[in-house]
Amino acid sequence: MQWNRSLPNGTKDKLFKEASHSHQLESLVNQHFALRGYHRIETPLIEFEEVFSAMDQKATSRYRFFNEQGQIVVLRPDMTLPIGRVMSTTGIIPPVQLFYSGKVFRVNKDHSGEYNEQLQAGMELIGYPSLKAEAECLINAVTVSQKSGLSDFQIELGHASIYQTIVEALQLSAQEKTRFKWLLQSKNMPAMALFLEKYEAHPLYNFVLKLPRLFGDAGIFEEVISLTNHPEILKAIDEMKDLIQRVQQVYPRQDLTVDIGLVPEMKYYTGITFKGYADRSSDAFFSGGRYDNLLTEFSVDTIEAVGLVFYLDRMYSIFNRQENSDALEISTLIYFENDCLHQAEQLISNQANSRLSLQETLEETIEYAKQWGIPRILIVSNEGIEEVCLASKEDENGEGKNCVNQRTD
Amino acid sequence: MQWNRSLPNGTKDKLFKEASHSHQLESLVNQHFALRGYHRIETPLIEFEEVFSAMDQKATSRYRFFNEQGQIVVLRPDMTLPIGRVMSTTGIIPPVQLFYSGKVFRVNKDHSGEYNEQLQAGMELIGYPSLKAEAECLINAVTVSQKSGLSDFQIELGHASIYQTIVEALQLSAQEKTRFKWLLQSKNMPAMALFLEKYEAHPLYNFVLKLPRLFGDAGIFEEVISLTNHPEILKAIDEMKDLIQRVQQVYPRQDLTVDIGLVPEMKYYTGITFKGYADRSSDAFFSGGRYDNLLTEFSVDTIEAVGLVFYLDRMYSIFNRQENSDALEISTLIYFENDCLHQAEQLISNQANSRLSLQETLEETIEYAKQWGIPRILIVSNEGIEEVCLASKEDENGEGKNCVNQRTD
Repeated sequence: MQWNRSLPNGTKDKLFKEASHSHQLESLVNQHFALRGYHRIETPLIEFEEVFSAMDQKATSRYRFFNEQGQIVVLRPDMTLPIGRVMSTTGIIPPVQLFYSGKVFRVNKDHSGEYNEQLQAGMELIGYPSLKAEAECLINAVTVSQKSGLSDFQIELGHASIYQTIVEALQLSAQEKTRFKWLLQSKNMPAMALFLEKYEAHPLYNFVLKLPRLFGDAGIFEEVISLTNHPEILKAIDEMKDLIQRVQQVYPRQDLTVDIGLVPEMKYYTGITFKGYADRSSDAFFSGGRYDNLLTEFSVDTIEAVGLVFYLDRMYSIFNRQENSDALEISTLIYFENDCLHQAEQLISNQANSRLSLQETLEETIEYAKQWGIPRILIVSNEGIEEVCLASKEDENGEGKNCVNQRTD
Repeated sequence: MQWNRSLPNGTKDKLFKEASHSHQLESLVNQHFALRGYHRIETPLIEFEEVFSAMDQKATSRYRFFNEQGQIVVLRPDMTLPIGRVMSTTGIIPPVQLFYSGKVFRVNKDHSGEYNEQLQAGMELIGYPSLKAEAECLINAVTVSQKSGLSDFQIELGHASIYQTIVEALQLSAQEKTRFKWLLQSKNMPAMALFLEKYEAHPLYNFVLKLPRLFGDAGIFEEVISLTNHPEILKAIDEMKDLIQRVQQVYPRQDLTVDIGLVPEMKYYTGITFKGYADRSSDAFFSGGRYDNLLTEFSVDTIEAVGLVFYLDRMYSIFNRQENSDALEISTLIYFENDCLHQAEQLISNQANSRLSLQETLEETIEYAKQWGIPRILIVSNEGIEEVCLASKEDENGEGKNCVNQRTD
């Protein structure tokens, strides 16, 4: 067979350190939530496309195909909506605290820098109207990040109802909404002033005019209150203040900022939203928020829900940039004669960073150890265990030499 | 939105105990191989179809679709062949000891009882011609099975070269091969006798005639030797004998059987093959073997390889039938006043099987605890910690009552 192509666009192999680290992250998140009394849930990678109709199609193109019954199915682009489907089609009675992990699939533009298969893990608190749920989300976000080795990061809060209140109050058309979103996202003050010309008499005018620069620490709340007394917006501000105080009870030094003009990423968000950013990282490594309307997508009653997702591949990239390399280094090869397998097995269970040599001969084992810079070989024979220390690569005299001869019975 | 369909055929949700247990199995296998000095490898779920051309198309139908570049891609039906692709297209120099875990996809017939998304984990020893590699595979198979809680199971050995030697010696046509396979798989002695009529003079006649019943414990080797002296078959027998002795050095009581007439499951197998069966389970929960020709699929030189895969969903089914339920039971809900979140957080990190109550009020918390049979609530307030024991469900007097009042500062 002629083999001249490697991998489809947008996919990649994860080798060695990367593969092991991203799986460790996944395990760590799972272990954390299991210990905290959450229930794990796992939905299939293949779903009917209708499940994802609440998502913005333009933002994320999907892998879409026919299954064996001729129905259109997709590789899931998200894990929150399938959990909504589960809640609506099974007998699970809220409130429930769920966690999940697995792959999601999005067809990214070539050269976007993101791969199409992404590893995520997250939590869903379903049936909890209390702000306790938002606090639980953020405290878990900080705890999990710290357990993963990320200590220096920023949480940014927004509130979906601020954006929605403005869009309704100004009665923006679909086209105007798109423009308005862009003005907020690009923080473009002069263009916002132009856009708002026809709303000069509107009670929200002063507030919206300054919205692109209403971000920063909690001090920004005072400025908002000086600009508007719209009850929905004041309610949103109160919630954000309250949440910050709760999180700071547990993590008083956590860096928390606010973006009053944040555009909610998913149209199903209804309350506070949050994102986590690490230094020198352009994309959030976690995000979440309140979405009390999620389940109405699945024709069941409104159920209050708050959720958070960790983008594990982005977390790995942050580690990798910070070069916190603690990958397993093999320091010992255990070579054994064929009738000494039992002793070799006993030895490996007590030796950190060691591996059985599966080469037939000792010569091949020494060759292999030299090639990979493994400094030590234990030889298990019927005469006992012998230790061979190899000269380091830098050593001119590259011959293996016995440094200790330790014989046991 | 009208929601009247649930899940595509062949897919399922894993909830709670099942989801958590199958992830724990995956983590356990990963941890085991990492500690033994193996390197983790993770290939994409989406691959070009050519990667799998060594697989029998009829046996496993695939999810096949166009990607955004208009190329035909598949959801991987196997993880060994992608590792072959990695070895042939990257600079990894054998020998290497690799492990992996993840989902594979096969479109099963409706009502086959198997789901189309299957969780697997496995090991690949690449570049090891020695029988040490087969022994390593089987010892790991037993160790991992035992660590997973499976103690009572049988390993069945076969040898691909026996089947291949016969097919070549008898010069079977494609059609005859299909018939011959079926006769071996169905262990049909009378039909085999009919099939072999024209080979009565062939030196392998006596051996092949009895092949359907040449299975059982290691005693069967003597019978084989009495029936044939074909050098390839004697070599295969010697290898199997030797392997059994090596495994029994470490696990002297492991149930090991042999099936001389086993048909190799994949056409890439070249040597000893193995399968693990648990009591009352019809499908193998692990399988593997030697496939020295695997990499020739990818136009690189022959590299010796031995591998083994664990079918984690089948392992879960075995546990589930055996009802070894050790799922996390929540025994304590921690209810906290909003300014006592810090104390509640300290408490949960020291309490096994506990969960923060995210209900706004104590009344809702008690209601929830009664509904789910959670026997104990800790109330964290500025006055300290108070313990409430709830009457059990069976108790007529269903009111919550304080069993201990423990106040601290």
